Amino acid sequence: MTIKVGVLGAKGRVGSAVVAGVQAADDLELVAEVDQNDSLDVLVENGAQVIVDFTTPNVVMDNLEFCIKNGIHAVVGTTGFDDERYDQVRAWINDNPQTGVLIAPNFAISAVLAMAFAKQAAPFFESAEVVEYHHPNKLDAPSGTAVKTAQGIAEARRQANLPAMPDATETSLDGSRGADVDGVKVHAVRMTGMVAHEDIIFGTRDQSLTIRQDSYGRESFVPGVLTGVRQVADHPGLTIGLDNYLGL
Amino acid sequence: MTIKVGVLGAKGRVGSAVVAGVQAADDLELVAEVDQNDSLDVLVENGAQVIVDFTTPNVVMDNLEFCIKNGIHAVVGTTGFDDERYDQVRAWINDNPQTGVLIAPNFAISAVLAMAFAKQAAPFFESAEVVEYHHPNKLDAPSGTAVKTAQGIAEARRQANLPAMPDATETSLDGSRGADVDGVKVHAVRMTGMVAHEDIIFGTRDQSLTIRQDSYGRESFVPGVLTGVRQVADHPGLTIGLDNYLGL
Amino acid sequence: MTIKVGVLGAKGRVGSAVVAGVQAADDLELVAEVDQNDSLDVLVENGAQVIVDFTTPNVVMDNLEFCIKNGIHAVVGTTGFDDERYDQVRAWINDNPQTGVLIAPNFAISAVLAMAFAKQAAPFFESAEVVEYHHPNKLDAPSGTAVKTAQGIAEARRQANLPAMPDATETSLDGSRGADVDGVKVHAVRMTGMVAHEDIIFGTRDQSLTIRQDSYGRESFVPGVLTGVRQVADHPGLTIGLDNYLGL
Amino acid sequence: MTIKVGVLGAKGRVGSAVVAGVQAADDLELVAEVDQNDSLDVLVENGAQVIVDFTTPNVVMDNLEFCIKNGIHAVVGTTGFDDERYDQVRAWINDNPQTGVLIAPNFAISAVLAMAFAKQAAPFFESAEVVEYHHPNKLDAPSGTAVKTAQGIAEARRQANLPAMPDATETSLDGSRGADVDGVKVHAVRMTGMVAHEDIIFGTRDQSLTIRQDSYGRESFVPGVLTGVRQVADHPGLTIGLDNYLGL
Repeated sequence: MTIKVGVLGAKGRVGSAVVAGVQAADDLELVAEVDQNDSLDVLVENGAQVIVDFTTPNVVMDNLEFCIKNGIHAVVGTTGFDDERYDQVRAWINDNPQTGVLIAPNFAISAVLAMAFAKQAAPFFESAEVVEYHHPNKLDAPSGTAVKTAQGIAEARRQANLPAMPDATETSLDGSRGADVDGVKVHAVRMTGMVAHEDIIFGTRDQSLTIRQDSYGRESFVPGVLTGVRQVADHPGLTIGLDNYLGL
Repeated sequence: MTIKVGVLGAKGRVGSAVVAGVQAADDLELVAEVDQNDSLDVLVENGAQVIVDFTTPNVVMDNLEFCIKNGIHAVVGTTGFDDERYDQVRAWINDNPQTGVLIAPNFAISAVLAMAFAKQAAPFFESAEVVEYHHPNKLDAPSGTAVKTAQGIAEARRQANLPAMPDATETSLDGSRGADVDGVKVHAVRMTGMVAHEDIIFGTRDQSLTIRQDSYGRESFVPGVLTGVRQVADHPGLTIGLDNYLGL
Repeated sequence: MTIKVGVLGAKGRVGSAVVAGVQAADDLELVAEVDQNDSLDVLVENGAQVIVDFTTPNVVMDNLEFCIKNGIHAVVGTTGFDDERYDQVRAWINDNPQTGVLIAPNFAISAVLAMAFAKQAAPFFESAEVVEYHHPNKLDAPSGTAVKTAQGIAEARRQANLPAMPDATETSLDGSRGADVDGVKVHAVRMTGMVAHEDIIFGTRDQSLTIRQDSYGRESFVPGVLTGVRQVADHPGLTIGLDNYLGL
Repeated sequence: MTIKVGVLGAKGRVGSAVVAGVQAADDLELVAEVDQNDSLDVLVENGAQVIVDFTTPNVVMDNLEFCIKNGIHAVVGTTGFDDERYDQVRAWINDNPQTGVLIAPNFAISAVLAMAFAKQAAPFFESAEVVEYHHPNKLDAPSGTAVKTAQGIAEARRQANLPAMPDATETSLDGSRGADVDGVKVHAVRMTGMVAHEDIIFGTRDQSLTIRQDSYGRESFVPGVLTGVRQVADHPGLTIGLDNYLGL
């Protein structure tokens, strides 16, 4: 049996990739493509069971209110959520508690897994550093993902009462040892030709463990969105972050 | 407060590295080194709370019987365990149920984590392959760790009802696509200078995730043994495999 | 002073990327785009100094005859050349010996360098293996590039009188040790999401050297073509292979 | 026919590894082991054709004078050479011009090749960065090898008139973009368990090339020293740097 899916923001760059992904999946059926100025009623008319929303902060809340009221589960990649918005979503779900809503900042499943594994591994290693690699048009360094990864490692080390990492450096060139994010060193490489890549490196006695994530193209979010679509009905209520669906 | 530790097989290659590791750890105190022909009584006399056993299959069961009877927790890397031996250990523990015994085939914590992460990641990727690298004196190919890793991936894919991996290969040189372990391709590289390394590679739309494990020396088991020593008292009963202690 | 460039096959996938590359380069000026049924006279009329030919085997020889007769240098990626064709090109050049013609099967400069470095490194290492990674739609395994790389390594080892590589493998799963190309093991990984990647690995006492080549997209030939355009005037006569332009 | 080899500093850590390396090589014969207070006459008496010198700055010049006068070729890893010393060695060789002397700061052949390849590759890529990885007991960051690698890349880019590398970074955490060595970014990772490793990364349109060097142990200099021993007779005069022997 297939899941009937509607896509909101269906004509945007991300939304159209989601449309193609749904169409290519044997277990999913695309029943509605909604974009600006389209009525949401088509979702109900066509029996959508799950919607995917990659729209804009100014319409996503109306979309969610409509879907939750109609018992349609929602997978949301639209940005702009804060605690107030989360509370509003929870309030709507209270009236329709079987509805599942997944809101996630990052659907690149390999990046989400890499971050989760980093937190799991962190307590068992003396050393941990992050090296990220991006195309040279990127405006910020390090990447938000790398900073978040380092923060996750730092928090896991704190909880495990680990001491500071060993580092005997006495003389160094400025910047060579990277940026310090909560005690975790983060290095950013900018390289023509590359897309987005991250090495999360852990070391202890006679061994290291490296979690390497590579994005080769712009549609790396698709598999994560489809994973969300397949599982959202089994997760009633509001879930924040795709990692909660990955059985970690 | 420190944990009082006894080491059995203290003069062997592995045991002596464990001795050094215990001595170097602030939270552990070495209270007994036992080797061939030494009496186990020193463990009781010196108040050992946890023992580490890297001995031989023909003495390890006597060691365990003694320790369990005396309420001394045990971390065991000695080989030769089968279901019959596990049942015997469980029977002894029945009489002393607060005692914890950890028996593990592999204490290299990075390898244990790599295998666990591979199982967690497997359901979310279309493709998965393993490439292992070892020194050229190794007698078997692929390594036991690589085979076990592939089996874990295959089992996780089955449970997630994943289809076979995509592979359009029509013409190939014999062996180029690796060995088939339960449908997962495994490649073995033999390289002078290398020690023991493994890449577990997962791919899906526009992205890949690589879990890389490197062993640089012969004492990579030490951190895992110490992790076992620190946690065994919190895990009464028999535990098989270090992964059960890692909070995964 | 800029170089005036004409592109033959200008509307093909490859040719149009070359057109864009020439237009984006400050030191090159695009003076002619020629495609099917267009006259070559525009090259002379517009003063083309160098042409790039990504056409088809059935028109490339006519193109070259025209260009060489008119003293226009040529950078050629069109396939289908054999010794007879090379001899014909040399004969034409004899009448116009200042003209340079570069014919190359591969313009991906990182792949060309990787292969050249592999030959240079090979004599100094006991072990060498190749692991290539491609998307799963590839029909052959291993890739032609990997086979050629292995052949280059094998030839360099023969010239250096190196013995066979050490390999103590006694028991192995079929295929795990890869394909044997002239005594060099080659492994092929097929992975959704990946594009085209190659690890050329060398090992000797306590060390290894890995030459890694990554192609992330379909236009990796552009920088090599532009390198050819810039240098062809300095290489009169026929040159086969971009490596001859790289000062190696 | 074997080459007769004497080792000076034969009881030091490095020298004793060289002794073992010579003894293990079929084409080399160890004829003399010289250490502190031993007479050099044994070299002549035993017919040494090549000596290896890993001694100290205060005895190496006497050793070289003796060897050159006796027509014994020399492979030297001892430190402390400056222009004055090089000139003195050249003067001695003038009287015995068939004698070859190789003085090299680095005999780790994979590192020497990596640096040479980096210089060769540099002119063909828009971007280049270096990431080095060492154990956490290292006192300086980045490593001398990484700095020298970056300088070589910078010099090769200057000679090719390359513009500055593209880098759109507008906001960054301090240190994240690494140290600037002549315009080439260098990043230093410190990681328990690691030994000494270096990634030299080049990128251009849709591709990257990574030269990775791994040292796994402390005797990585042995193959380079033996390469020197085998070739020094074919290189009369003073040669500075092992790269000159590698046919690059």
